[in-house]
Amino acid sequence: MAEDLLSEIKRVVVGKPISSHLAHHERLSRLTGLAVLSSDALSSVAYATEEILRVLVAAGAGALALATPIALVIAAILAVVVFSYRQTISAYPTGGGAYIVARDNLGETPALVAAASLLIDYVLTVAVSIAAGVAAITSALPQWHVNRVELTLAFVLVLMLGNLRGIRESGRIFAVPTYFFIATMLLLIGIGAWHVLAGGATGGAPPEPVPPAGAPLTLFLLLTAFSNGCTAMTGVEAVSNGVPAFKPPEAKNAAATMLTMAALSITMFLGITLLAHAYHVIPNERETVVSQLARAVFGERGPAYYATQAATMLILVLAANTAYADFPRLASILARDRYLPRQFMNQGDRLAFSNGIVGLSLFAGVLLVAFGGDTHSLIPLYMIGVFVSFTLSQAGMVVRWRRLGGPRWKSSAAINAVGAAVTGLVLLVVAATKAREGAWIIILLIPLHVVFFRATRRHYDTVARQLSLRGWSRPRGRRNTVIVPVSGIQRAVVEALDYAKGLSPDVRAVYVNIDPEETARIQAQWDEWGDGVPLVVLESPYRSLMEPLLEYIERHAAANPGDYVTVVLPEFVPARWWHHLFHNQRALLIKGALLFKPNTIVTSVPFHLQQ
Amino acid sequence: MAEDLLSEIKRVVVGKPISSHLAHHERLSRLTGLAVLSSDALSSVAYATEEILRVLVAAGAGALALATPIALVIAAILAVVVFSYRQTISAYPTGGGAYIVARDNLGETPALVAAASLLIDYVLTVAVSIAAGVAAITSALPQWHVNRVELTLAFVLVLMLGNLRGIRESGRIFAVPTYFFIATMLLLIGIGAWHVLAGGATGGAPPEPVPPAGAPLTLFLLLTAFSNGCTAMTGVEAVSNGVPAFKPPEAKNAAATMLTMAALSITMFLGITLLAHAYHVIPNERETVVSQLARAVFGERGPAYYATQAATMLILVLAANTAYADFPRLASILARDRYLPRQFMNQGDRLAFSNGIVGLSLFAGVLLVAFGGDTHSLIPLYMIGVFVSFTLSQAGMVVRWRRLGGPRWKSSAAINAVGAAVTGLVLLVVAATKAREGAWIIILLIPLHVVFFRATRRHYDTVARQLSLRGWSRPRGRRNTVIVPVSGIQRAVVEALDYAKGLSPDVRAVYVNIDPEETARIQAQWDEWGDGVPLVVLESPYRSLMEPLLEYIERHAAANPGDYVTVVLPEFVPARWWHHLFHNQRALLIKGALLFKPNTIVTSVPFHLQQ
Repeated sequence: MAEDLLSEIKRVVVGKPISSHLAHHERLSRLTGLAVLSSDALSSVAYATEEILRVLVAAGAGALALATPIALVIAAILAVVVFSYRQTISAYPTGGGAYIVARDNLGETPALVAAASLLIDYVLTVAVSIAAGVAAITSALPQWHVNRVELTLAFVLVLMLGNLRGIRESGRIFAVPTYFFIATMLLLIGIGAWHVLAGGATGGAPPEPVPPAGAPLTLFLLLTAFSNGCTAMTGVEAVSNGVPAFKPPEAKNAAATMLTMAALSITMFLGITLLAHAYHVIPNERETVVSQLARAVFGERGPAYYATQAATMLILVLAANTAYADFPRLASILARDRYLPRQFMNQGDRLAFSNGIVGLSLFAGVLLVAFGGDTHSLIPLYMIGVFVSFTLSQAGMVVRWRRLGGPRWKSSAAINAVGAAVTGLVLLVVAATKAREGAWIIILLIPLHVVFFRATRRHYDTVARQLSLRGWSRPRGRRNTVIVPVSGIQRAVVEALDYAKGLSPDVRAVYVNIDPEETARIQAQWDEWGDGVPLVVLESPYRSLMEPLLEYIERHAAANPGDYVTVVLPEFVPARWWHHLFHNQRALLIKGALLFKPNTIVTSVPFHLQQ
Repeated sequence: MAEDLLSEIKRVVVGKPISSHLAHHERLSRLTGLAVLSSDALSSVAYATEEILRVLVAAGAGALALATPIALVIAAILAVVVFSYRQTISAYPTGGGAYIVARDNLGETPALVAAASLLIDYVLTVAVSIAAGVAAITSALPQWHVNRVELTLAFVLVLMLGNLRGIRESGRIFAVPTYFFIATMLLLIGIGAWHVLAGGATGGAPPEPVPPAGAPLTLFLLLTAFSNGCTAMTGVEAVSNGVPAFKPPEAKNAAATMLTMAALSITMFLGITLLAHAYHVIPNERETVVSQLARAVFGERGPAYYATQAATMLILVLAANTAYADFPRLASILARDRYLPRQFMNQGDRLAFSNGIVGLSLFAGVLLVAFGGDTHSLIPLYMIGVFVSFTLSQAGMVVRWRRLGGPRWKSSAAINAVGAAVTGLVLLVVAATKAREGAWIIILLIPLHVVFFRATRRHYDTVARQLSLRGWSRPRGRRNTVIVPVSGIQRAVVEALDYAKGLSPDVRAVYVNIDPEETARIQAQWDEWGDGVPLVVLESPYRSLMEPLLEYIERHAAANPGDYVTVVLPEFVPARWWHHLFHNQRALLIKGALLFKPNTIVTSVPFHLQQ
């Protein structure tokens, strides 16, 4: 049977369904929580320093020294944001994403702007992380550089299938790589620092000579470099979204996890930036900054170097995986609020929201192809969504403190206000410096999303009004006339007739007269097989089978308004699909013709052909 | 409404339906019968002479003189065939196509071979006639020569649409061109003959010099030229197929029409061949022989010349149109005999058999593209089908005379035997000389068609056995359990429930418990809205909505074998088609899952959204 085969295939590809009781046993400890929820924030270390350097290098090798002060400013802002988000965690123990915080405190439009930003952000998290992960691979294996778009798409496919199997399970699988990455980075920074302090930092023999200064060192250039560096902040909000996934006490565990994450993130980001400076690393198109550093620190192409690249790749893939949990979850919340089609509300078989997962993969794939799988080209698109949601989320918290009051509301509000102001400022800087590099796409997409969300909501509200039982007087005593179109006297027709007879006391068989001889034959046989059902013969001056039948139904419906008309059709179910070619699609035609007629129901009684 | 718009478009494109009573008023007189049924036979005059000359010219200009004796032989054979077919007309006053004659007298396989040959023949009639018609145009307007494939396809499209409007009507429209062609040809031959007799035949200043002899004048070359010339015979059978279309006395009128047609055909064919000889016409790629003759006789590019070309083009299009009547008619007969899918049996709205018309156009279009719209390349494919059906039809008549006996059966049988022998001989010559030029395609296609016909018949016979009432004990007292899956309590569900209550005393509402709170709410509301129908709550450990429902149905069906299970679903009919995006396709999924379960009927109660 076709459906058995299909579900069998589904089992093999996406695994067997998880019982919903299991969900509670899979709560996160601080250790696994850090692994599952902070990969996005930590992994940005892999490209944040490089993104700063790639802007500065335009003003010559001397300008690269400015990366360190820029990184310090970013680290400070990150600390502010983390403290601001800590308050969100305790205020929203059931998960306080930017959409929920904005919806509760700022109203519909800001909430929808936040939702749009987040959805876009998730898609870009997948695209940027996978592009950066593939860059880690192609730095180590330069011969794969030409295939990087194909590699990114392969990763998207793997993540999609993995997530269709269920998100918690993939979380556990990926716990090891996070710690592997943290260990490698700390080792790299530690050994590098020791070399530097011992005076042995020689630089990693950069594959290209230092490029000449092509642009003056303007404020705009500095701000652009700063904007790029702010990628280091992406992903901090993940823990505050995922509070209910923690073991109790959820809020406390989540807050501790976020602080650990922030400390690690700042340490690694500053460490890499300082080392890059000390080792005179020049960014280039074909090898990442981290790869150059690892080569310099661990020696050319040794096992420690390859381990670093592997760890970087793995954490980035894991970061992309974060979005695979967040996107369908937000889509499901939006669908529950009726801002997205309800298909997104379904949890599917394995607690993974299949529709969202597939949608996310598609969009990320399109971006990766459009931008050639290049991290640097994707970054300008990434930042807008991130900082819109940061700003709205924290502004929402300010409003919340004011509204709720309480003993220390002013100091709490102040922390979030600083957070909102700082991230709002970053947003303006990002928009100003990045609009022309692609951020305009996002600035355009956000309002378009909002319009779509509103239209969707309006549609569902209209439907709900039409479905409402309030003030509706339930119609009673509606009769049901059953009509059985008869094409000849054979077993399928007789079975349909017998089925129809059970449905209503008012059953009529209808035959369209095209050939009077044939009609006479049918009428003669009717005494034996009609079983008391009256046979109505319709004339067809135009030799059409359909039109007299439809007219008869319409006349009957017009004469009996409010009553039901049920058309019972025998329908062959052929033994092989291509046998459909040999049978009229008359049932389909009749269904199509009657689809828009109120109170008219078309029922097919299947007749299963055995061969 | 969508279907109203569709039928409106259909009306505009293919016209309004013809009542079947009209069919009898549209019977053909001898005059209109000649126009409608003989265009195929007469129009071959436009290319038959040329096809002989194109072969002979390979042996040098001197060989062209042999065209006249070859044409005389062909004319003699044509006369034999016509006398043979006259007997078919009186024997089969209801229409005696090769398939019917072979089926009645020779058995299934010869009949199917004849049917295959005829179907292929009709496709080639369209392709060859249109290619030749376009050659008439491009002879007069050489600048259009490069677009001849596009021109042929445009003609196919026009014929297809015209015929979807109805065949009788198009017959009347095309009556004038036949007589216009006959008049032009007789005038051309008359004036040409007068010039020749007056000693003024000078030759039409051929655009190319006489090519040198490239091949020896072998018997094979002569036979090839003869085969090509036999195209002059195509179409003679049209009148005998169309006997019932004549006014009474049908057979007599048809016979007289066929004799007139044969006389005209032979006169014109011989006339053109003799004139071509007298005017020293040399065939070439870019201008037809008739065009060259018309230029020579009527003077360079005068109105009489253009009239000749126009008349030639028109009759050829009309000849193609003959196939548009014959192909769907034969397909319908074959479908009635269950050798073709029954879709071909339908007469559609306008007595035109739409499926056959579209199929014919497609096949002809493919051939025209594949052979570059070139008459000469298509001719080798044409002849096999024509002569297979000639031979089988007349052989069938011989058997018929023997079987029926009667006073003068031997002389009648002798006439048909001569016809069969002569056409059989021509068939062998054609197969031998043309196999390598493309006729092999047809030699392959005919048995493939026969295999397909038989497979189709076998399928329908199997189905008929399964539908047969003979020896079948009608099952009695089958109960019907009606199951209404409930997703929530709203108007569409309540209406579906009310409908379901009318269908059976055993109705159950089924709700899948995913969220216990929601379930409790539904149960609380059920007292008010359930209206006495029991609410069954199914547990769903895997959070799936579908699986518990399907399991429940399956369990019930297993416990009550032979009884019906009817699943009643509310189904939204959105006001706009794209609103479908906003609603679950759950009804569709349930239908798909239950499609292959015996005794299970899925019924949708439409709920029409107003906006």
